[in-house]
Amino acid sequence: MTEIMEIPLQSLDPKEFITGKVSEIARVVGTGSAINALSGGVDSSVVTLLGHRALGNRLTSCFIDTGLMRKDEPETIRAWFLNLGVPVTIVDAREAFFDALRGLKDPEEKREAITDTFYRKVFGDLVRKSGAKFLLQGTNYTDVEETVAGIKRQHNILEQLGIDTEARYGYRVLEPVIELRKRGIRKIGEALGLPGEMYDRPPFPGPALAARVIGEVTPERVAVVREATAIVEELLENTGAFQYLAILHEDRVTGMTGGRRDFGLQVEVRCWDSTDAVTGSPTRLSFEILEKLADRITEEVEGVVSVTYNITKKPPSTIEAV
Amino acid sequence: MTEIMEIPLQSLDPKEFITGKVSEIARVVGTGSAINALSGGVDSSVVTLLGHRALGNRLTSCFIDTGLMRKDEPETIRAWFLNLGVPVTIVDAREAFFDALRGLKDPEEKREAITDTFYRKVFGDLVRKSGAKFLLQGTNYTDVEETVAGIKRQHNILEQLGIDTEARYGYRVLEPVIELRKRGIRKIGEALGLPGEMYDRPPFPGPALAARVIGEVTPERVAVVREATAIVEELLENTGAFQYLAILHEDRVTGMTGGRRDFGLQVEVRCWDSTDAVTGSPTRLSFEILEKLADRITEEVEGVVSVTYNITKKPPSTIEAV
Repeated sequence: MTEIMEIPLQSLDPKEFITGKVSEIARVVGTGSAINALSGGVDSSVVTLLGHRALGNRLTSCFIDTGLMRKDEPETIRAWFLNLGVPVTIVDAREAFFDALRGLKDPEEKREAITDTFYRKVFGDLVRKSGAKFLLQGTNYTDVEETVAGIKRQHNILEQLGIDTEARYGYRVLEPVIELRKRGIRKIGEALGLPGEMYDRPPFPGPALAARVIGEVTPERVAVVREATAIVEELLENTGAFQYLAILHEDRVTGMTGGRRDFGLQVEVRCWDSTDAVTGSPTRLSFEILEKLADRITEEVEGVVSVTYNITKKPPSTIEAV
Repeated sequence: MTEIMEIPLQSLDPKEFITGKVSEIARVVGTGSAINALSGGVDSSVVTLLGHRALGNRLTSCFIDTGLMRKDEPETIRAWFLNLGVPVTIVDAREAFFDALRGLKDPEEKREAITDTFYRKVFGDLVRKSGAKFLLQGTNYTDVEETVAGIKRQHNILEQLGIDTEARYGYRVLEPVIELRKRGIRKIGEALGLPGEMYDRPPFPGPALAARVIGEVTPERVAVVREATAIVEELLENTGAFQYLAILHEDRVTGMTGGRRDFGLQVEVRCWDSTDAVTGSPTRLSFEILEKLADRITEEVEGVVSVTYNITKKPPSTIEAV
């Protein structure tokens, strides 16, 4: 276990970084082949492009459709990368994930189920079938820091926790952007030719929409938060905020539907000002935008009668709720 | 069952209304005695004063300490009324209410438990012991309307629902302010000499803080929402808003306490612009106030890591959450 040192933004030379990482990946993988899971977030997108530069078609990039992704995400991501000359394989693993999540309410158990399904079952199978011995992974420096501090439990940071991933999961993890924070990774994405809509995307958690469902994660409940997320992203993408998200609560609250009392769903919206996700404060959105969010979510997402906006700083809040 | 007709605000003559109601109460009660439960809200405060004018010491006004009231409420209310020459008896019924609420999570079951404990057990006992045959009750016109429309299930409106309260609970209900909405009742309160801090108090629900606890209502959970409510009322009392409240969620969310990941409580703040509680919209509070609410609630109320502000209109939301 080596200690990871951060490369601060001001001393980051994107071209030099890219050249270094591409040759490092090429050297470590040698004549072997690598595989990576592309989520479409900036971290895994940058890793995919670095790996593709280093290995060409010896890198297999998979988009695993967990059933927990945002609206139209699998198709959109594949189309973006095809456009960059990188073929992406979509793997339909929805059943495996929802089976593993059935009946679970505890956030740690949900994370564990997703991690295990992702690595051991779905991705482990892909790796074994592909014959690739190397996994490229988009762990960043904030993940390292928060895992060490005990704030976050990252599924992609097993090596930092002293878990030998080769023994446990059957492959070895390379983490080419681990010395960078989000803004550094975006700079690299820009230098790699990623279009702005890709490298400027707000951070999205590993457990995807499951991190935004309090309580049991079912296809129906994910569908609710997926619709709400699409509205939040549409209305807030021009705010310049660091991250914005919708959370489906398990609590039900009284509301009125068609003039009658109804016991419905509540969605919480969060929108963060932050530079690195370590600290943050709620974006001071106008009430025009806040009310539009509430109007559209209650009108367009079936069953939702109440929408809240989170007004807590991080800390004591965290960016995500689960 | 007679149909109730609203007296609109513009045609309300407070002096005439008071004279009429005082003589009506005196006439109906005759030489008997009456009892009423004073919650300290404007409705029951006005009813207490009307009843006291009509009946003097033949009216017994009880403040039932359900354990669900706001901070220092029993003592404050008693002191206010003593000051107006009206003696108020505080009845400690905390154990009866928490016993009845134990294990209940469903809002209807919780309301039912509170209603039954209030009327049948605690208040029924008081009435039987007092020998009073008449109960004065602060039902208002919005309650009638919403009960008829099926939006609200009011505990104080049994007669409107065709339930014979004399047979079921052993007493008869008089509702002197039933033709008025909140603003009319405040005008009457002013004319009766109630101090501004009393007749201008924001509405507070019958089930009290139990209406602001999602999930099981325990002394510990009520204590959390009581502290949060005190902060919300302190910070928002000068906003001129119609109603403002804190709700304790049952959902737990991730937060950070002392630099470590923690699974904590979430409090929701609601603040309403409304004239009559039939429709409403969230008050456009400044982010200075919103952040101060979040800071103080997370700092001062143990276990709370997250605070939200409700941004939904009524409808589809309701004023309260339970």
